[in-house]
Amino acid sequence: MTVDLTPGPVAEDLARRTARFVRETVVPVEERLGGVPGSDDVRLELQRAAREAGVFAPHVSPEYGGHGLDMRDRAFVFEEAGYSLLGPLALNIAAPDEGNMHMLEAIASPAQKERYLRPLAAGATRSCFAMTEPAPGAGSDPAALATTAERIPGGWRIDGRKWFITGADGADFVIVMARTSGAPGDAGGATMFLVDAGNPGMRIVRHIETLDESLFGGHAEMLFDGCTVPDDAVLGEVDEGFRYARVRLGPARTTHCMRWLGIARRAQDIAVARAAERELFGSRLAELGMVQAMIADNEIDIAAAHGLILQACADLDRGGSGAQSTSIAKTFCAEAVWRVVDRSLQICGALGVSGDVLLGRFLRETRPFRIYDGPSETHRWSIARRVVRRHDAAHAR
Amino acid sequence: MTVDLTPGPVAEDLARRTARFVRETVVPVEERLGGVPGSDDVRLELQRAAREAGVFAPHVSPEYGGHGLDMRDRAFVFEEAGYSLLGPLALNIAAPDEGNMHMLEAIASPAQKERYLRPLAAGATRSCFAMTEPAPGAGSDPAALATTAERIPGGWRIDGRKWFITGADGADFVIVMARTSGAPGDAGGATMFLVDAGNPGMRIVRHIETLDESLFGGHAEMLFDGCTVPDDAVLGEVDEGFRYARVRLGPARTTHCMRWLGIARRAQDIAVARAAERELFGSRLAELGMVQAMIADNEIDIAAAHGLILQACADLDRGGSGAQSTSIAKTFCAEAVWRVVDRSLQICGALGVSGDVLLGRFLRETRPFRIYDGPSETHRWSIARRVVRRHDAAHAR
Amino acid sequence: MTVDLTPGPVAEDLARRTARFVRETVVPVEERLGGVPGSDDVRLELQRAAREAGVFAPHVSPEYGGHGLDMRDRAFVFEEAGYSLLGPLALNIAAPDEGNMHMLEAIASPAQKERYLRPLAAGATRSCFAMTEPAPGAGSDPAALATTAERIPGGWRIDGRKWFITGADGADFVIVMARTSGAPGDAGGATMFLVDAGNPGMRIVRHIETLDESLFGGHAEMLFDGCTVPDDAVLGEVDEGFRYARVRLGPARTTHCMRWLGIARRAQDIAVARAAERELFGSRLAELGMVQAMIADNEIDIAAAHGLILQACADLDRGGSGAQSTSIAKTFCAEAVWRVVDRSLQICGALGVSGDVLLGRFLRETRPFRIYDGPSETHRWSIARRVVRRHDAAHAR
Amino acid sequence: MTVDLTPGPVAEDLARRTARFVRETVVPVEERLGGVPGSDDVRLELQRAAREAGVFAPHVSPEYGGHGLDMRDRAFVFEEAGYSLLGPLALNIAAPDEGNMHMLEAIASPAQKERYLRPLAAGATRSCFAMTEPAPGAGSDPAALATTAERIPGGWRIDGRKWFITGADGADFVIVMARTSGAPGDAGGATMFLVDAGNPGMRIVRHIETLDESLFGGHAEMLFDGCTVPDDAVLGEVDEGFRYARVRLGPARTTHCMRWLGIARRAQDIAVARAAERELFGSRLAELGMVQAMIADNEIDIAAAHGLILQACADLDRGGSGAQSTSIAKTFCAEAVWRVVDRSLQICGALGVSGDVLLGRFLRETRPFRIYDGPSETHRWSIARRVVRRHDAAHAR
Repeated sequence: MTVDLTPGPVAEDLARRTARFVRETVVPVEERLGGVPGSDDVRLELQRAAREAGVFAPHVSPEYGGHGLDMRDRAFVFEEAGYSLLGPLALNIAAPDEGNMHMLEAIASPAQKERYLRPLAAGATRSCFAMTEPAPGAGSDPAALATTAERIPGGWRIDGRKWFITGADGADFVIVMARTSGAPGDAGGATMFLVDAGNPGMRIVRHIETLDESLFGGHAEMLFDGCTVPDDAVLGEVDEGFRYARVRLGPARTTHCMRWLGIARRAQDIAVARAAERELFGSRLAELGMVQAMIADNEIDIAAAHGLILQACADLDRGGSGAQSTSIAKTFCAEAVWRVVDRSLQICGALGVSGDVLLGRFLRETRPFRIYDGPSETHRWSIARRVVRRHDAAHAR
Repeated sequence: MTVDLTPGPVAEDLARRTARFVRETVVPVEERLGGVPGSDDVRLELQRAAREAGVFAPHVSPEYGGHGLDMRDRAFVFEEAGYSLLGPLALNIAAPDEGNMHMLEAIASPAQKERYLRPLAAGATRSCFAMTEPAPGAGSDPAALATTAERIPGGWRIDGRKWFITGADGADFVIVMARTSGAPGDAGGATMFLVDAGNPGMRIVRHIETLDESLFGGHAEMLFDGCTVPDDAVLGEVDEGFRYARVRLGPARTTHCMRWLGIARRAQDIAVARAAERELFGSRLAELGMVQAMIADNEIDIAAAHGLILQACADLDRGGSGAQSTSIAKTFCAEAVWRVVDRSLQICGALGVSGDVLLGRFLRETRPFRIYDGPSETHRWSIARRVVRRHDAAHAR
Repeated sequence: MTVDLTPGPVAEDLARRTARFVRETVVPVEERLGGVPGSDDVRLELQRAAREAGVFAPHVSPEYGGHGLDMRDRAFVFEEAGYSLLGPLALNIAAPDEGNMHMLEAIASPAQKERYLRPLAAGATRSCFAMTEPAPGAGSDPAALATTAERIPGGWRIDGRKWFITGADGADFVIVMARTSGAPGDAGGATMFLVDAGNPGMRIVRHIETLDESLFGGHAEMLFDGCTVPDDAVLGEVDEGFRYARVRLGPARTTHCMRWLGIARRAQDIAVARAAERELFGSRLAELGMVQAMIADNEIDIAAAHGLILQACADLDRGGSGAQSTSIAKTFCAEAVWRVVDRSLQICGALGVSGDVLLGRFLRETRPFRIYDGPSETHRWSIARRVVRRHDAAHAR
Repeated sequence: MTVDLTPGPVAEDLARRTARFVRETVVPVEERLGGVPGSDDVRLELQRAAREAGVFAPHVSPEYGGHGLDMRDRAFVFEEAGYSLLGPLALNIAAPDEGNMHMLEAIASPAQKERYLRPLAAGATRSCFAMTEPAPGAGSDPAALATTAERIPGGWRIDGRKWFITGADGADFVIVMARTSGAPGDAGGATMFLVDAGNPGMRIVRHIETLDESLFGGHAEMLFDGCTVPDDAVLGEVDEGFRYARVRLGPARTTHCMRWLGIARRAQDIAVARAAERELFGSRLAELGMVQAMIADNEIDIAAAHGLILQACADLDRGGSGAQSTSIAKTFCAEAVWRVVDRSLQICGALGVSGDVLLGRFLRETRPFRIYDGPSETHRWSIARRVVRRHDAAHAR
């Protein structure tokens, strides 16, 4: 099977239309709001506009109203959508909904798909994914999972604490990961549950104030305190939660890369525009060597990130786990995007740190990406371990 | 003349007491306020406490109520004060007041010292320094100065626009730089004026929203529109403004380094505390090699920055211009502090981007330092030119 | 047209066989010789072995005895060949012969192809490309070309000095670039000439001692002093030399990347093997976090370089000039390969700087790649200029 | 006690004279020899010249014919000596003799001083320090020491293998570290012995070919095979070897920094001279922004390294162990010197990799410094551990 470096014809057209839509329709809203999405009205209006422009839900299968793009094609469209902080929201491909749709399509039962996936894909509902726990619970080490689900007659009772649950505020349902066998430290025995908003045993304890502010619904700390759910709230199979998490993880971190690479392109465009206009010491900024070095390094970082995303997509589209390639792409992209935004801000000087351009906002939004979906250090650890295991296996004779 | 790597006995004691004062009295206020100083009441209360602790105004000469430290000794005290974002405010050594006091002591007339320096040194008033202009005016290139002051009977009329004027809101007086001869692009012909708040020809046009928020009084855009001042508002001599700016510049950028190095030490302490407590994969974070690398790199950056600050101080205390040494110190420190804060935040993971610790705040506060007081690129350009001129001079035979 | 991230079936098989050939046949010779190819006997024997293994000349069209791979497919085969410093020599794809074959196939006359390309493709002859001149001649700035060719009856007389002419010693013919119109500084008016070894007007003045030593034939300084050639020595058209140079340049710098990426993979394998075996402080080196970080960064650099090479190949195979994409790939790869070799050596510690492994040799061989085929700084300058021109064009209304 | 940032008057004069001596007398020899010292005649002639210039042996106490400089003063003189690869040899302050003299002065008995130190300080003899062992012996982890010394009647019998023993070939005596109690892995129980050349139980097994070639006597692998020595061959006390090694280590690694910083200054001077002369694209190289950035970064690295060396010297001169400060200085200097040489070479382009300037040689010579005297990774590990221990101690209440 071959995987292209270029989008298929459908995706190419969709990417072009997405680019136009984002620049013409989304960016003005973003600039007015300073990049923070604000109310649900904004979200709904942007999604309506995206639907009219024919660019809504590019990732979901046609059965649920989408364009059914594979990962490779998503790369081209998502990068265009990511050109604005609000672009992914408009196309309904923002985290965590996008990853949840991907996982629901892969593992939910037909009934669950009707009840949860269909309205989610349509933008009628929102969701969140409750996995991360405060120390010493599940974080970089998923096996530390401390939230438990115990069998009760007709269902399960979930108890535990989660934090940094993106989009929790206003979510119509929550996919929560809980331990159904084993103990914290064991790599097995987790199960995913679908919990509806309003369940009296689940509540938001606080909104965590964070450096970033543009992910819709913010980051919440949640408490599951005797939260009971019926049997059909189990997503997939009992005790298969860690495996499902990996199903979600590879693609989810890769689409994160796509979206943030869009912001890197945007930052570069802002900086280049400034460098092309601003005069200093008798020449345009763009003619000064150190500024040229920054512009070039941005271009190199963006191209390299794009290449790594495509390699990860190729892996996933071929049916691979993408463990190594998505880890490599994520680590590089998170750091490259950060470098690009930082250099772009530097090129713009005082203007760059002001609210007159969105670069300071982008800096705040992209910083956490080097931490969530696995900190760079955890990924480097995993990458190296796989390389060494490969070596050990080849020499274990 | 010898310049020590260690503080003199007075400064050593003062540094020790400053450290205790900041940790015990200032940090709790800072943590309560999230690092943003808020109202003038906070400032006044912190300064009263500093006076009681005997650590107020370490830099001003005893004649004006201070401890009269030279630059070398300031390094040790200011680094301790900078351990909290509010420490410099408490000691009355925050920018831009501290630099203004330094300059007023050096060049103001006796009458101007009584009127402006004495209350400023006492914390009874605040000031600002209006030099930077929006493009294409004075910024990285001071010679682009576009604001003008024209002679009128009995005084001067100032016209022009300034921006990023730190501390303007609430300042009791403004030191404004205006062109009194020549044209934008000429390196000569600037004069400094003391303008009292309330002058009807001077007003704040807007508060510039910026990534950083902890400098008291914020960053304003100001308009001088037929702003008239009497003859005795001239600070020093007419047409000597650029020279005075350099008098202010070398020490001011060096004390900036001292203060921000304090924040770097603080960030490191927060990260080390976290690394020492948090367990991951069965060991303390502090025992993981990649975390150790970050802690060590922080330590190296902090030590190197400290050494460069002392070299710059030695230059200035010996009566040198400090042009090269302060430029080197500023460039390295601004980038090193940024790296230290960034690594510290990374060590803390999700906690690091949350408002539960101040690292995200520190990241926002320190980013602009790579731009103000000369962007790193402008400094590198100057540093290289001086090296090449030295070579040219040595080989021009 | 689609361009794959995976090799076509022919190239996939060829890459696999090349990998085996290099590991089994070439590496032992390389380790015996310390990476420096030595005599022509070694070259001829390696090429005979490659021919027997069916991996000889993968890039030349079948008409001249090769496999006729496009750029994309070359990437996969050349990276395998580059796994040993002698691999490219064995496959007859070493610089500068490989680039010369590519150019001759594109622009030589049928008679020139018979006379020069056919034996070159067969490994029966060697060649060099004489373009670079000592300062202030052609280097980073090709337009500075100072060597001249003047019309004489029945041909041309070439005068000038060239240096860093790789492979000159022992070359059977030289492709020399000379100015046929205009003056140094003009971007036009160059012509390429084919000069046979033994021409009395052309001689090697000295062998330039260099950090690298593995390119066959070394780097020579050459003098053209009244060197006369007949009319049919003109390669392509008169005054079209700069255009042809660009035809050669894009692919040549990209195949350089492929070959050196092979060395990066080799260095990583050596380091991983060491890290997997060596114990320190009670664990394997491979289990220490800082070593893992280096292994992971190598892996990331290698993957990113590979992705950029493929993007450049896609550009070239689609018929594009590849100006931007090959420049990006070259800049990143040259620096990434260097980083990988440097980290690998560091992982191996004292062993790494010893002659017991080839890492010190690799370090020496790869350092110049950041300079030849355009220093990184020249590429960054070009990359930025293209970005800004694109911006200017889009906003020139 | 105060420690100056400036040399004392004696050292200032000595540094000035050393600078002149190295530039006028040593550099011409170095350029003729390509930086590799060659025969003992060269060494003896250079040392005679240094003695005549009054700059010989600045570090040894006057009792043994030196100038008795403390560490701070050494910094200024050694940095000047290090300006040439042969400068330290000329002044008799090259590794490993310089470190051995330092240690002998500190711990040898009066008789040992007469017999070993006096002629060594005079340049009449040479020495080496045999500590490092091939894996799994003593390297980054000294406690892995595997060479043993067993009591025999009237003395000791030493058995073991050492490698990377710098200067072994031609050394008149060897200071060897051997285990006299405990087992590999124990941190105690080592003893140092003085072994005369010609001892039949000690021999050089091979010369290790290395990337660097300028340390006199090269790097040898040595075998101690039933090597017997009398009781008075014990240096200091039995079982105190690890403590003595630390006595040697802090100062020795700091003087390494001083010498290599000299090479960094030299590389910068070569690059600046080239940048000031060479024209490209119509301006001097020195006027191109990216070249200016490299020149400035060199200047910053050199200044920061100098500051860290002085901080380490202050620590040592005050009687501290210097464990943390010399570790910080070593890590930063080794990497900074490498960056400076690398950038300088890059500035010089093709010339830089040629033997026409010594930059390629410097690159080869400085690379191992990131490994010997403790790899950067081992130092970072130690630095971080000390920081965390400091934290633990402060919070262990």
